[in-house]
Amino acid sequence: MVGGGEGSFIGYVHRVAARLDGEYELVAGALSSRADVARRSAAEFGIAPARAYDSFETMAQTEAARADGIEAVAIVTPNHMHFGPAKAFLEAGIHVICDKPLTSSLADAEALAAIKPDNGARFLLTHNYTGYPMVRVARAMVAEGRLGKLRVAQAEYVQDWLTEAVDTKQAEWRTDPARAGGGGCIGDIGTHAYNLMRFVSGLQLEALSADLAAFVPGRRLDDNVHMMLRFEGGARGMLWASQVAPGNENGIALRLYGDKGGIEWRQAEADTLWFTAFGQPAQRITRASAAADISNAGHRIPPGHPEGYFEAFATLYRDFAAVIRGEPREELPGLADGLEGMRFVTAAIASSTANARWISLNDI
Amino acid sequence: MVGGGEGSFIGYVHRVAARLDGEYELVAGALSSRADVARRSAAEFGIAPARAYDSFETMAQTEAARADGIEAVAIVTPNHMHFGPAKAFLEAGIHVICDKPLTSSLADAEALAAIKPDNGARFLLTHNYTGYPMVRVARAMVAEGRLGKLRVAQAEYVQDWLTEAVDTKQAEWRTDPARAGGGGCIGDIGTHAYNLMRFVSGLQLEALSADLAAFVPGRRLDDNVHMMLRFEGGARGMLWASQVAPGNENGIALRLYGDKGGIEWRQAEADTLWFTAFGQPAQRITRASAAADISNAGHRIPPGHPEGYFEAFATLYRDFAAVIRGEPREELPGLADGLEGMRFVTAAIASSTANARWISLNDI
Amino acid sequence: MVGGGEGSFIGYVHRVAARLDGEYELVAGALSSRADVARRSAAEFGIAPARAYDSFETMAQTEAARADGIEAVAIVTPNHMHFGPAKAFLEAGIHVICDKPLTSSLADAEALAAIKPDNGARFLLTHNYTGYPMVRVARAMVAEGRLGKLRVAQAEYVQDWLTEAVDTKQAEWRTDPARAGGGGCIGDIGTHAYNLMRFVSGLQLEALSADLAAFVPGRRLDDNVHMMLRFEGGARGMLWASQVAPGNENGIALRLYGDKGGIEWRQAEADTLWFTAFGQPAQRITRASAAADISNAGHRIPPGHPEGYFEAFATLYRDFAAVIRGEPREELPGLADGLEGMRFVTAAIASSTANARWISLNDI
Amino acid sequence: MVGGGEGSFIGYVHRVAARLDGEYELVAGALSSRADVARRSAAEFGIAPARAYDSFETMAQTEAARADGIEAVAIVTPNHMHFGPAKAFLEAGIHVICDKPLTSSLADAEALAAIKPDNGARFLLTHNYTGYPMVRVARAMVAEGRLGKLRVAQAEYVQDWLTEAVDTKQAEWRTDPARAGGGGCIGDIGTHAYNLMRFVSGLQLEALSADLAAFVPGRRLDDNVHMMLRFEGGARGMLWASQVAPGNENGIALRLYGDKGGIEWRQAEADTLWFTAFGQPAQRITRASAAADISNAGHRIPPGHPEGYFEAFATLYRDFAAVIRGEPREELPGLADGLEGMRFVTAAIASSTANARWISLNDI
Repeated sequence: MVGGGEGSFIGYVHRVAARLDGEYELVAGALSSRADVARRSAAEFGIAPARAYDSFETMAQTEAARADGIEAVAIVTPNHMHFGPAKAFLEAGIHVICDKPLTSSLADAEALAAIKPDNGARFLLTHNYTGYPMVRVARAMVAEGRLGKLRVAQAEYVQDWLTEAVDTKQAEWRTDPARAGGGGCIGDIGTHAYNLMRFVSGLQLEALSADLAAFVPGRRLDDNVHMMLRFEGGARGMLWASQVAPGNENGIALRLYGDKGGIEWRQAEADTLWFTAFGQPAQRITRASAAADISNAGHRIPPGHPEGYFEAFATLYRDFAAVIRGEPREELPGLADGLEGMRFVTAAIASSTANARWISLNDI
Repeated sequence: MVGGGEGSFIGYVHRVAARLDGEYELVAGALSSRADVARRSAAEFGIAPARAYDSFETMAQTEAARADGIEAVAIVTPNHMHFGPAKAFLEAGIHVICDKPLTSSLADAEALAAIKPDNGARFLLTHNYTGYPMVRVARAMVAEGRLGKLRVAQAEYVQDWLTEAVDTKQAEWRTDPARAGGGGCIGDIGTHAYNLMRFVSGLQLEALSADLAAFVPGRRLDDNVHMMLRFEGGARGMLWASQVAPGNENGIALRLYGDKGGIEWRQAEADTLWFTAFGQPAQRITRASAAADISNAGHRIPPGHPEGYFEAFATLYRDFAAVIRGEPREELPGLADGLEGMRFVTAAIASSTANARWISLNDI
Repeated sequence: MVGGGEGSFIGYVHRVAARLDGEYELVAGALSSRADVARRSAAEFGIAPARAYDSFETMAQTEAARADGIEAVAIVTPNHMHFGPAKAFLEAGIHVICDKPLTSSLADAEALAAIKPDNGARFLLTHNYTGYPMVRVARAMVAEGRLGKLRVAQAEYVQDWLTEAVDTKQAEWRTDPARAGGGGCIGDIGTHAYNLMRFVSGLQLEALSADLAAFVPGRRLDDNVHMMLRFEGGARGMLWASQVAPGNENGIALRLYGDKGGIEWRQAEADTLWFTAFGQPAQRITRASAAADISNAGHRIPPGHPEGYFEAFATLYRDFAAVIRGEPREELPGLADGLEGMRFVTAAIASSTANARWISLNDI
Repeated sequence: MVGGGEGSFIGYVHRVAARLDGEYELVAGALSSRADVARRSAAEFGIAPARAYDSFETMAQTEAARADGIEAVAIVTPNHMHFGPAKAFLEAGIHVICDKPLTSSLADAEALAAIKPDNGARFLLTHNYTGYPMVRVARAMVAEGRLGKLRVAQAEYVQDWLTEAVDTKQAEWRTDPARAGGGGCIGDIGTHAYNLMRFVSGLQLEALSADLAAFVPGRRLDDNVHMMLRFEGGARGMLWASQVAPGNENGIALRLYGDKGGIEWRQAEADTLWFTAFGQPAQRITRASAAADISNAGHRIPPGHPEGYFEAFATLYRDFAAVIRGEPREELPGLADGLEGMRFVTAAIASSTANARWISLNDI
């Protein structure tokens, strides 16, 4: 693991997700850029002192050279520190599991996507919401044509934790352009909403018109994002991401409508997918009713027993273990998705700066 | 009543709403532009033959001249036939209850709004969703500052009945530019969503950027509307109206967020208002819990017994009866609201035509 | 109308329900046992002084003798005052609309049910929840065998308004054995839950075991009812009625399960019926999706626009008008249902008094 | 681990739960009574051959004798095979984590509860629903008096998987009296509902009246349970458990009402607790809003990101690890709770056999 030392939320999440299915063991880490924190955290997580590194470069080289070196690394640093480690480990032939967004700048993302390691190293971007069973069921239903030709897509990711100025560790780097990149809310959660929309719908974005705002006095990055979308083939969409909407915790949701039907999903009711074939009663599809059709949704327990955030996250880890073993898993987000996410963020900022002018993704 | 003969949905709704509280009696009508339908419908509704008119002009003149002439008229014709009757009755000193949108063109709306009858005639525009008790509670809470300074407004009105081409009477005029005006979905239900947003928030729209689409082959007016909004004072918003979203029946909903709290309301759960003071648990406010604070919400039965669409509609009728008696009711939508709605529709069409360029309402 | 003067909640409800479809006109009344209240209320409701009676006996005789006498009477007095007026009007050949429960004692109920007027007078008991469209859809689905052979029935009606001692007019007579009869909560709302269960399921109760409690100090009648049920044919059930459950307003709900499927309905979401065919996804059936199959559900507006309590109540009035015109309406609750309700209450009290011993309905 | 070999659902759940927080490592097992299955399963789970035992007796002795012997064992066999292993490991000084119900007979339960090992061995009964954060919040709120004096308790656990005859491994032993004990549904899930009710309310059961039924032809144990409850201090309750209610997956739910307020919780919305102080709006309490007050609810991630079944289960494991380290955790279910559960099952069967006669728990 790179990053994820004391006080890191996302590092903890990755560790739990990695552990859940018993496919990974944490044996090495460069857990912090501060040596003492890195050492202390390594000890706490049961990493042997010899494999507790001060820098990701050393770690990549040393582990690649060991007979029992790590097979995969999880990169859970702030956005601006994704590129360096990702490049180093990929080039060292070590599989990379990287938190989103891919990088803090489009240039970095393109550079990273351009790496074609001939050593077999694979890349997983943890767009974790794609690991929810019902999200995968939704994707399969769209692909099967159950919705017909898509017309309208609505995605949102709504929080309230930045309603007032905050200075926790979580909030600090996310609102600092130097570390988060040019986008605040758009990069932190807007990319999740956009990726969820793409993952389920398969739609290709053509152009967007974005209106970013920073409502909290003194905030340097956007905390609310409004956006209109036009997709290839004629579908239209909207996307709302906010961190200043009191009463919303982690409200990521998706609604898709085609000429034959519609689906709705939201994380708060993660085990439920609403599907309506036009003219028919709405169906509440659960893992029970969908299980027969969908072999790769990846659920673990009987429906009615809720599966949550960790399980969805762990499904990415489990599937990536399968990929490492050589089994294909087409649902996994990778470098191309990360690059697309950065183009999306870049286009959104450009559009908003130009008074919400429509920006073609081809112009980015 | 003008319009509302056989087969009219909205005419029926107005009659039920008028009857519910016992404040109105239907005694005269020009119920159809076709004389036989007008006559037959009058007979069916218990209107004496002498007061079943062939034209609204005759009706306005004759009733104004009768000692026992009507006090108020309900205009429930298609959009392009609002202006004429409204003008005639207002000038005849008869109170007007008019379905929305105000007219089919902005010019008509401005002409109508310019009429200042010195005869005391009053005007009610049946933006019926403003009659829901919890919508009025929401408005009062915003006015009291419970949400703080408003930042984000999200409104939507989503249907699916035009997902495929339809040729019912309901659908026909609504999709005909000559009778509906230049807007389809935007005028029919977008105006409701916009009015609801204005009514509750009190926000003044500064500019909008709209993306209208007509998805069904052959349809001449928009059936899906995406819109971004900028309000005076800095708040931002989005509005979605659609008639092609399978699984949605009459899904009008509003979400508002300020720096102190947020509220959410949707017609499907009309008796419930969700309120969250930032950092506190969300509250499910019902007519029970709000009753003490809110004297003018206008509910009729104990909470838990749902009040529905007719009751909300009837509340406008009941309140307008009070206005006619000389009691002020500031919540009632009137000519100014109708004019604002037409400016909204006009701006939306202009913006969409100009590739979703931001259009200032002041430029309309 | 008999009863229903100033301050009466249920009288007001009956008047609105009668008015909604335009099938009834209120022209005469014995609105209170106190002459001044009766007179004042009559004036308020637009009843001519000549037809504002001091006693129901006079009213029945006088109206029966008038050429333009009333066709039907609504009896909305406290329970112990149902029997007398119902008998008088039925014998006078006037149709009776009577609030539930039928009477305050089983003996009265039996006496009333024994009346077989040869004058054509009909009887409607306003078990108003049977007027909800989706309740009627549920009944039709059970009758069609969509649930298979019924096994389990769960009904509840839960309120909180008597959580503390109250002394409003509403509360006062309902908690007084002399006026309400031997049952409190069981008669007031337990009978509604039981009737709803019977109406939808068609099940015939064989025996019950009841545990009644009066939780509020000083209360003389039950305010909470627990009950187990055994039906002919082997189905089992439970029923919970309470007036002391904080957070519940008028929570009447029904769940039925057979060997092929299950349904769930609750008033708070009155326009929705949940149906699951065993092994299939749950369906959210609305008036839209059910409309094709169900001709007599009686709804008035497009789905998504909520229909509420008044509409359901009014449906009974509208259907009874049809019955008076000679059109059969098998769904309407009548004397037999009222008698069954009184046997149910009597059995419940007997069972509870005998330490929840099973009581056969045949022994009542 | 004892039991839990190939094809075991609950064994898998225990392994995931044990792994989630990184506090346990699976190093030894007697995973099946069939030697080949035991061996094969051990290999699959990464247990060294030397510690893959054929019998739990051998395992208990051998592990107790090893310097690096196991600290704790998880017993996940069918009900009739809980007693033997539990006794053996407790007496060997090894901590026991045992699935519920405690045993298959009351006699076994009493014998087990009578063991007072002086070796410090501790016992955890995995009534896993007590591990949900909002369930623990509910318990704390009741204890703080937020509901006042409790009056009414309603618990249910409703499934549909046994609606028809099934012959999977899961179904087979659960419907076999020799292995499940005298209760079917009552022991399998009724005990969970009862334990949840006790855990949150703190109420002590005085007497019950139960009506058990086996609806599916040929089924030898109950598949539906209706029950009325009387608690010390005067509160009353109902409990419904069913495995034949189509549309219900694992619907465990609890509602409690006192003279000051009420709470509602259901697993399908596990992260939400509804609380109403009488006369106030209902509150939707989440982990966010409750976090400040409740230190031991044990949640892991920010609210809005759902935590599910595995997390709740894992919380018991994590807390039990704390107990083993010597930190008190009063929320954990243990032997006394298991014994109470068996008395509950025994009383339910006795009552049902005696035509739902009230049975005092003191008579069991």
